Amino acid sequence: MQFQAQPDRPDPLLAKKVQELLGGQWGEISVSMSYLLQGWSCRMPGKYKDLLLDIGTEELAHIEILSTLIAKLLEDAPAGEQEHAMADDPSLAAVIGGMNPQHAIVAGLGPRAADSAGNPWSGAFAQASGNLLADFRFNVTAESQGRLQASRIYKMTDDAGVKETLSFLIARDTMHQNMWLAAIQELEADMVDGTPVPMDFPQEQEHSPHAYTYWPLSDGGQGVEGPWANGPAPDGKGEFSVTEPTPEGPVPMPPKPAPHLFAKGTPGPS
Amino acid sequence: MQFQAQPDRPDPLLAKKVQELLGGQWGEISVSMSYLLQGWSCRMPGKYKDLLLDIGTEELAHIEILSTLIAKLLEDAPAGEQEHAMADDPSLAAVIGGMNPQHAIVAGLGPRAADSAGNPWSGAFAQASGNLLADFRFNVTAESQGRLQASRIYKMTDDAGVKETLSFLIARDTMHQNMWLAAIQELEADMVDGTPVPMDFPQEQEHSPHAYTYWPLSDGGQGVEGPWANGPAPDGKGEFSVTEPTPEGPVPMPPKPAPHLFAKGTPGPS
Amino acid sequence: MQFQAQPDRPDPLLAKKVQELLGGQWGEISVSMSYLLQGWSCRMPGKYKDLLLDIGTEELAHIEILSTLIAKLLEDAPAGEQEHAMADDPSLAAVIGGMNPQHAIVAGLGPRAADSAGNPWSGAFAQASGNLLADFRFNVTAESQGRLQASRIYKMTDDAGVKETLSFLIARDTMHQNMWLAAIQELEADMVDGTPVPMDFPQEQEHSPHAYTYWPLSDGGQGVEGPWANGPAPDGKGEFSVTEPTPEGPVPMPPKPAPHLFAKGTPGPS
Amino acid sequence: MQFQAQPDRPDPLLAKKVQELLGGQWGEISVSMSYLLQGWSCRMPGKYKDLLLDIGTEELAHIEILSTLIAKLLEDAPAGEQEHAMADDPSLAAVIGGMNPQHAIVAGLGPRAADSAGNPWSGAFAQASGNLLADFRFNVTAESQGRLQASRIYKMTDDAGVKETLSFLIARDTMHQNMWLAAIQELEADMVDGTPVPMDFPQEQEHSPHAYTYWPLSDGGQGVEGPWANGPAPDGKGEFSVTEPTPEGPVPMPPKPAPHLFAKGTPGPS
Amino acid sequence: MQFQAQPDRPDPLLAKKVQELLGGQWGEISVSMSYLLQGWSCRMPGKYKDLLLDIGTEELAHIEILSTLIAKLLEDAPAGEQEHAMADDPSLAAVIGGMNPQHAIVAGLGPRAADSAGNPWSGAFAQASGNLLADFRFNVTAESQGRLQASRIYKMTDDAGVKETLSFLIARDTMHQNMWLAAIQELEADMVDGTPVPMDFPQEQEHSPHAYTYWPLSDGGQGVEGPWANGPAPDGKGEFSVTEPTPEGPVPMPPKPAPHLFAKGTPGPS
Amino acid sequence: MQFQAQPDRPDPLLAKKVQELLGGQWGEISVSMSYLLQGWSCRMPGKYKDLLLDIGTEELAHIEILSTLIAKLLEDAPAGEQEHAMADDPSLAAVIGGMNPQHAIVAGLGPRAADSAGNPWSGAFAQASGNLLADFRFNVTAESQGRLQASRIYKMTDDAGVKETLSFLIARDTMHQNMWLAAIQELEADMVDGTPVPMDFPQEQEHSPHAYTYWPLSDGGQGVEGPWANGPAPDGKGEFSVTEPTPEGPVPMPPKPAPHLFAKGTPGPS
Repeated sequence: MQFQAQPDRPDPLLAKKVQELLGGQWGEISVSMSYLLQGWSCRMPGKYKDLLLDIGTEELAHIEILSTLIAKLLEDAPAGEQEHAMADDPSLAAVIGGMNPQHAIVAGLGPRAADSAGNPWSGAFAQASGNLLADFRFNVTAESQGRLQASRIYKMTDDAGVKETLSFLIARDTMHQNMWLAAIQELEADMVDGTPVPMDFPQEQEHSPHAYTYWPLSDGGQGVEGPWANGPAPDGKGEFSVTEPTPEGPVPMPPKPAPHLFAKGTPGPS
Repeated sequence: MQFQAQPDRPDPLLAKKVQELLGGQWGEISVSMSYLLQGWSCRMPGKYKDLLLDIGTEELAHIEILSTLIAKLLEDAPAGEQEHAMADDPSLAAVIGGMNPQHAIVAGLGPRAADSAGNPWSGAFAQASGNLLADFRFNVTAESQGRLQASRIYKMTDDAGVKETLSFLIARDTMHQNMWLAAIQELEADMVDGTPVPMDFPQEQEHSPHAYTYWPLSDGGQGVEGPWANGPAPDGKGEFSVTEPTPEGPVPMPPKPAPHLFAKGTPGPS
Repeated sequence: MQFQAQPDRPDPLLAKKVQELLGGQWGEISVSMSYLLQGWSCRMPGKYKDLLLDIGTEELAHIEILSTLIAKLLEDAPAGEQEHAMADDPSLAAVIGGMNPQHAIVAGLGPRAADSAGNPWSGAFAQASGNLLADFRFNVTAESQGRLQASRIYKMTDDAGVKETLSFLIARDTMHQNMWLAAIQELEADMVDGTPVPMDFPQEQEHSPHAYTYWPLSDGGQGVEGPWANGPAPDGKGEFSVTEPTPEGPVPMPPKPAPHLFAKGTPGPS
Repeated sequence: MQFQAQPDRPDPLLAKKVQELLGGQWGEISVSMSYLLQGWSCRMPGKYKDLLLDIGTEELAHIEILSTLIAKLLEDAPAGEQEHAMADDPSLAAVIGGMNPQHAIVAGLGPRAADSAGNPWSGAFAQASGNLLADFRFNVTAESQGRLQASRIYKMTDDAGVKETLSFLIARDTMHQNMWLAAIQELEADMVDGTPVPMDFPQEQEHSPHAYTYWPLSDGGQGVEGPWANGPAPDGKGEFSVTEPTPEGPVPMPPKPAPHLFAKGTPGPS
Repeated sequence: MQFQAQPDRPDPLLAKKVQELLGGQWGEISVSMSYLLQGWSCRMPGKYKDLLLDIGTEELAHIEILSTLIAKLLEDAPAGEQEHAMADDPSLAAVIGGMNPQHAIVAGLGPRAADSAGNPWSGAFAQASGNLLADFRFNVTAESQGRLQASRIYKMTDDAGVKETLSFLIARDTMHQNMWLAAIQELEADMVDGTPVPMDFPQEQEHSPHAYTYWPLSDGGQGVEGPWANGPAPDGKGEFSVTEPTPEGPVPMPPKPAPHLFAKGTPGPS
Repeated sequence: MQFQAQPDRPDPLLAKKVQELLGGQWGEISVSMSYLLQGWSCRMPGKYKDLLLDIGTEELAHIEILSTLIAKLLEDAPAGEQEHAMADDPSLAAVIGGMNPQHAIVAGLGPRAADSAGNPWSGAFAQASGNLLADFRFNVTAESQGRLQASRIYKMTDDAGVKETLSFLIARDTMHQNMWLAAIQELEADMVDGTPVPMDFPQEQEHSPHAYTYWPLSDGGQGVEGPWANGPAPDGKGEFSVTEPTPEGPVPMPPKPAPHLFAKGTPGPS
């Protein structure tokens, strides 16, 4: 196994939390499936495709690490009848009330392809758009949210074994955040794509009057004070400015009724 | 209405596609709900919070534009019995075979809170992590994928009215991509957060030997040739290098069996 | 079987549409499961409980009717290789392009517990709140939307056999709409509950200044012209009036940051 | 903000419950999206369309109120390591065992677009059928279930600040229940639609023998004693009666087997 | 009712667990819907079709039993404000922290069509493939997992009333496992289908060199030691052997880029 | 790559169908994740654990094969504006109407982690119960349904390249069905578990009168004629017999009402 996964002691509540890192929206199943799909779909052989497949493969090993960690955290979980003991031990009561019942009933104290609230992982969480820059930005996001979540769980336990495993995963997320940021720079240097994604949509086909204007639409007034509302835009193609938006579309006339669909539209007396 | 939504002619197949921009994972419901939740959760009053609420409010208007556009594209959709006409007209046949049946049966030729394959929008697509940099990176991703999808649909039609509406949305996505990128720069300048997210997780608690090493794990060998495997990392705190990973964890010994859960573990004769 | 389900001819596109009546949000699985759950949960023995179980049982038979209808509509569906025929026959092409591929691949030309867009039925569509009036209102809604959808599909085909089956289901939906409306009157006459649901929430604990006021909040100005904005309210306890809402809550001060969760909140220079 | 949202003290278990009012099936996201979609799809300009958009807009403000309330209830939630304290404090143990872990791990102590069990909100919960009466009945149902749920949570806490916010929302649900009931009366008075929905499906096309008959199908015998089984039906077009249903369809002959789909049907020796 | 469902005492935590048997992936809704759909779709009149409908009907009664059991376990559940009591009673605290909040808020202390983690039942859990042997194997699996889960919950409580109900369901699962196994033998004896399913796919169209070879692909080396890697295969048509797989496909050349989809593919300098 | 994936020609409708084999309930993601989770959770080192990990690893390669196949089938898919061409070419019209729009809009002509109807893969489809026999039965089922689906798609195309890839996957499913059947025999020989699963639930705790009785509950009468209703049961512990079930439970008395939950229960005049 790529790294150890040996908690100091069982902790079913922590097992439930660690599920977020395994089967949550920003967990290891998501990044593994995303990078592999991006790699297999990549229409450009070479360094980018190999990068995606290298890291997608690595993330598979993280699934193994977390699955093992969860199984060990669930060892000896109170899945038997323990009503009397519970009355005397608040910690035990918290575990019995709070552990994911599916860990015991469905999985026999093993991991689930689900998040910390018990929602099953969804294929929608695997992202592969066919556009490398859009996907690499997603990848930075996923590693940021992933490292954030691992850091939060790190703070929630004092189990040294779990902390050791998490510190390994956090380090890899450090690597991967840096790596995807470097890959974005390389993509732009290689002219593969750029801001705004996709860079080869013809600028003259955009509705240009609105491509660099900031619209203050909420009650707070300080939104206009940032560099996103004034000065040059990051894409180097425009200058930010502030305007008050005015409705440019007419009040839409509704389409005429569809009687065969019983979408009643004969105007009443109003 | 913020902008016009008047197609030249009805086109139920296009209506189905435009649903991706309304109720898809990277559609307007997603960005609107994400920015508003990020804004309401933002624990720092001022420019960032206002920025989030300004743009979240703007995206609500985009929901209106796309809902209206879809309703108009669905006008006169062939929801009646038309078998005979279909035999003579391949385009009509394609529409009858291909339109989303729920547009007619469930919604009476109106929009749905769903994507182009008919999957209902999920609350999981609204992202608000409580960490501004992680969320702003998500926002850049969402606008990138959103603009990419709008650009693709733009190429799929020659309806000038629809193209006009899309060119407006594409322009706003240009603005919003630039804007979130500028906001990221400002966040870093304001020292609110930085790479790697979260920047205040103590570096000494990471498993540092693995924080900057690239592991070539797939068959392709070119992954090591990028700037993500050599040279300084974007966070300015480390230097990339390439290593062959070796298993650092022991082959995991499985936890002992849980007989009351009927997770049979008495070793057989193997 | 309760009623016949014999189409004049196979029609896989119609089979796909009929799925909405079987496994859609307002289909027969939804009403059957809802009424049975409401009945089993009903804490009051007698006519209401029996009513729920009578009709819940009837709806099970509707599931059988629609399942049979779908299987027969799928008979002979073009699930083989037919590329050449397709080039000559737009209707066949529409079927091959438009039929639900799961009907052939997964179900072997049988029904699915899914709607017309292929989304699986969800347990969230079964409603049983423990409050009879809330549930009976749901039941009226479900029968209304159900009859509406069946009526729409009735208009989409000229298959006399299918029309016969639908006319039976539409008649039962007529009965059931009337029946739940009568049951609501009876509930109110029996003082089981009333408007507003739940009628036994103490009126003095409501924020009474806002219990009967209409707030015009959109651009359209005619919302104030209906009987919902002026005159006595249906519950007989208040009088409608129109006011312009003013913010009653302060601009919310965000909670203080949670550093251990890396929800960064140190104010920047803004 | 439209109304205050200031709890007396943090309570993460209550925050989890309040999610039902925000992102549950009958929560504020559902009604807001439903009314706006109904309004944008409404093919009849005037009072009904404006009513829908007025109230859809109001519900957006309720999302803000509840999001703020949840964030404040989560303040200081025990997201750190607290095993030792837990052993001495059952209330704290209950919180640690029972709070939604995603509130801490994913959202950094902010709200989620999910319900009280952690299920993400689904676009299927937004209802807009293109038939005003069907939708207004849904709206009454949604406000009834919504007020019921808010009333239940009101009883579950003694936090005066939370009670104040809930009493405001309950009052608005009182208004909205009354309002949609009045709107239904107006729809009927305006002859826009009527019972049974849709009123313009031709009565002669229904299978009339079954349009007003009650079938006792469960073991309980009191279902026939209500006004839904005897006397005039609410639609004024029929008279209820009780019959014992007899199977009107033949035992269905299964369609012939589809050998190319490996749906084996060669009868065996049975 | 088919069997009693009378717990000795309320237990909302147990109610939450029992939901797995009602609305979980392998619960009674799943088997009931699966067997009925399989039966209605069965293209072969006679003993198999009747078997499916007999047992599908029986499972409906199990839904009733479990729904009643859950309602009774929820009686008196602490849904009121009880903060002070909680501080003194760890068991009560566990209940308040651990019960499914939707049981109280949404269902008024009644059952839900959901599993023990609160996920709504999905129509995807109902299996009916149109191939009897594939489905009967599914049925054995479902009854195995169902009995396993009921057995686990049996061990988690000492409530004699609940144990009595579970012992009935476990006995029926014993019957049903045996029954489906006997039905599989009968299917094979009747030559309806056989191993491998589907038995009428022509053996000469398979890629025969790989139809009976075992590939050791993980680090563990003992996989080759079982009877699945050596000796005759159960279908009587081949002999197992062990080989080291070699890549038989070329490294896939990616398809050429699709510029109108902004799937950038112009090779960079790599 | 483990095997070739080179269609003779693009075919976006076929790409949509092949998604069922990749991301459907019984597709390669399901078996790969199931076997790996079963292996990592297996508490018994040795041949069974290694078997699971060997095959779980092999299935990962199948994901790659199918992803590549789909990408190639989507090459040149008509994602541009082609209305005029469509009018002349029914096959093209079928493609434009019938292809999965997300293949073009979201994935840029690449694969999705979804099924043939566009539903995203769900973590609920990954099965790992902690009981080897229950899981191995699931595995036989999954391979049976998987081979059935691949066989059906094989019949739907005459593309020799696709047929070649499918014949490879079908051969592996032949191997895997045989293999899991052999593994079940070995499990039973090793006394790890047996019929009924779990074999170590004490027989005396079952409600024995119902453990071997067949209940004819539907209208068809031939269900009693099979070997599942007469003769010895496969587990060797009982003898099948036929009985008419009689209700053994009383008509359930509903629990008393919960007034604080507004579950109204004061009996009305009925």
